[in-house]
Amino acid sequence: MDTHTLTRELFIKNDSKIVMLVADGLGGLPWEAGGKTELEAANTPHLDALAKKGVQGASIPVAHGISPGSGPGHLGLFGYDPIKYLIGRGALEATGIGFELQQGDVAIRCNFCTLDADGNISDRRAGRIPTEESAPLAIKLREVSIPGIEIFVEPVKEHRFVVVLRGAGLGGNVRDTDPQATGVPPLDPVADDEASQKTVDVAKQFLTQAREILKDEERANFHTMRGFAAKPDLPSYEQVYGLKAAAIAVYPMYKGLARLVGMDIVGHAQTLDDQMDVLKQHWNDYDFFFIHFKYTDSTGEDGNFDAKVKRTEEFDAIIPRVLDLNPTVTIVTGDHSTPSFLSNHSWHPVPTLLASGCCRPDGLTSFGEDTCIRGGLGQFEAKHLMTLALANAGRLGKYGA
Amino acid sequence: MDTHTLTRELFIKNDSKIVMLVADGLGGLPWEAGGKTELEAANTPHLDALAKKGVQGASIPVAHGISPGSGPGHLGLFGYDPIKYLIGRGALEATGIGFELQQGDVAIRCNFCTLDADGNISDRRAGRIPTEESAPLAIKLREVSIPGIEIFVEPVKEHRFVVVLRGAGLGGNVRDTDPQATGVPPLDPVADDEASQKTVDVAKQFLTQAREILKDEERANFHTMRGFAAKPDLPSYEQVYGLKAAAIAVYPMYKGLARLVGMDIVGHAQTLDDQMDVLKQHWNDYDFFFIHFKYTDSTGEDGNFDAKVKRTEEFDAIIPRVLDLNPTVTIVTGDHSTPSFLSNHSWHPVPTLLASGCCRPDGLTSFGEDTCIRGGLGQFEAKHLMTLALANAGRLGKYGA
Repeated sequence: MDTHTLTRELFIKNDSKIVMLVADGLGGLPWEAGGKTELEAANTPHLDALAKKGVQGASIPVAHGISPGSGPGHLGLFGYDPIKYLIGRGALEATGIGFELQQGDVAIRCNFCTLDADGNISDRRAGRIPTEESAPLAIKLREVSIPGIEIFVEPVKEHRFVVVLRGAGLGGNVRDTDPQATGVPPLDPVADDEASQKTVDVAKQFLTQAREILKDEERANFHTMRGFAAKPDLPSYEQVYGLKAAAIAVYPMYKGLARLVGMDIVGHAQTLDDQMDVLKQHWNDYDFFFIHFKYTDSTGEDGNFDAKVKRTEEFDAIIPRVLDLNPTVTIVTGDHSTPSFLSNHSWHPVPTLLASGCCRPDGLTSFGEDTCIRGGLGQFEAKHLMTLALANAGRLGKYGA
Repeated sequence: MDTHTLTRELFIKNDSKIVMLVADGLGGLPWEAGGKTELEAANTPHLDALAKKGVQGASIPVAHGISPGSGPGHLGLFGYDPIKYLIGRGALEATGIGFELQQGDVAIRCNFCTLDADGNISDRRAGRIPTEESAPLAIKLREVSIPGIEIFVEPVKEHRFVVVLRGAGLGGNVRDTDPQATGVPPLDPVADDEASQKTVDVAKQFLTQAREILKDEERANFHTMRGFAAKPDLPSYEQVYGLKAAAIAVYPMYKGLARLVGMDIVGHAQTLDDQMDVLKQHWNDYDFFFIHFKYTDSTGEDGNFDAKVKRTEEFDAIIPRVLDLNPTVTIVTGDHSTPSFLSNHSWHPVPTLLASGCCRPDGLTSFGEDTCIRGGLGQFEAKHLMTLALANAGRLGKYGA
């Protein structure tokens, strides 16, 4: 059952404010047997104080044992079943560089490659060509012109760039042209359904023109196309929850994910303090605020336990600025765990805390991996968090008579 | 959503080893109010030591309140949704006596019965004819001959035997011929779908010849056919998890269940110690080992609390032999509860323990019904256990970007 079937039916509008603080990759692991996790080791007086008033639980991002990327991790927190709603790789890449996809767009991840004299691929990544050389080539590809199609070419990093095709009747189910091997020519794009045939025709024209434009380049004399993806068709926060929602994030990827569910991107914050300023400034304009903190994840991915502890304490320190605004519901969570011990996203459940005037406190006095498994929210799939948020905000009517 | 949709997509191969120890019917109940369960009463120093390093939880075999048989109980542990994948009764009976079903086989549970002079059933179980009398009759039924069909007749116990039909185009959806009443004749087999019509024709020929063969028998002068079932079509461990898997079991039923998911049956162990010898001997040949211990279930079914305690201690004693091999992931669980108090399989969640180098310990220091409900794995459906095993073995890639 899709939770939205219920929320669409039951949502109520009122003056409540919901704040969801997402510390990316919040969950962790002890560095050594018997030790504490990053969150347990961190000095977090404000989160602990909130834990006394609130209720906590362990959130399973997608399913037991599944380590999610940022896309499914955030969709779950936003209440969108991350198995049902897939964000294709092209769409996520475009989103990640801040490109605003429109309905019907098809986004494609492209790799510059090197072809030999026979037209076979000699290097699938054009020798990992540096960005300062590849970006001008991507810009040059903006010369490609196809009647009836608007084309966007955006540099990314090293051998990678993104192409977005905009026009009527473009489907996203097209196979990669990267043969995943050298010594062979690139593949032709092939449609996996009728609706994507026009995309194949357009892609072929693009490739023909690109081959001409790049032919004299020494290294990056062609490119492959991968991860074709239409803009995912997600219902908006307004539609499924009746919420006017704002995202306050620093990195384009998270702004992009929020935009996909219809949130407005507000402010140009560069730090957590900036984010708090933006929150305060827009407090009267929105019902729901998604605030994203990146560095608990990046320090975890770096395998730097101490740095993750420090970043967690930074995150703790801004909690009072949120509470000063007197939100109806305050949520603290993460989109997945990123234990420094693993230097990677993981499947471990994420400590999650919800505080409101009508939550049922669970007697716990601190916030961490050790406490959350004994919390009043139990273990639950992340996709249920938004329904709890709405309920605690008095924004859901009774189901059935 | 079928978990296998994700695992098929995400599995990775590496050199890790996963051991799943299944103590059949492990979960129990106190014998009297305020008392301990069998597992809590047992002296289990090795399981308790493993609990300190690992993470535990309460596994729900099928769904809340559902007491499973061995088939669904094990399918759940193996990660196959026991609601989606049904093993028909005929197929389970054949599997239980060690008969190796092939794709397309149809297995039928048969009961010898007694017909009166008018051809009406006077005893549906032929007076529970003893095995030493019934087995020769089953063997005699091997005289039945039907062109184009290979026929196997296997004695089971008392009035029960199994018939397996092998040939092209045999469907398994055929109704029982046992009218569940006396004073009436046996029913004719009836197909529930087009694909099973040929099975009905073959079954009718079998019954005609059997009536002739048995006509002079005093008690067992005919038989009924029940639980027609095709071999269930289960994807293999290799297909869904990329695992080369071995089963080390003593009883034919559990070997059969393991074979249905593509495990190899290794060794000819008769005791737990034998099973440990086989494990060691085949350690380098497989990625995954399923080790089945029967006696926690059989003592539970006997309603013998003390015997179940003793068998649990026997099980505990072999844990060091497993850990000596240094498995990447060690799992201890049961396929369901069999409380001696109930002398039966039950629905109660099963204490389940997982230990690995990257599990998130939960601070618990013993293993039992009382601790598992406070464990880091929470309460979870058994079908998720394999995904957790794979994740802890580093055998699952990231879901989504």
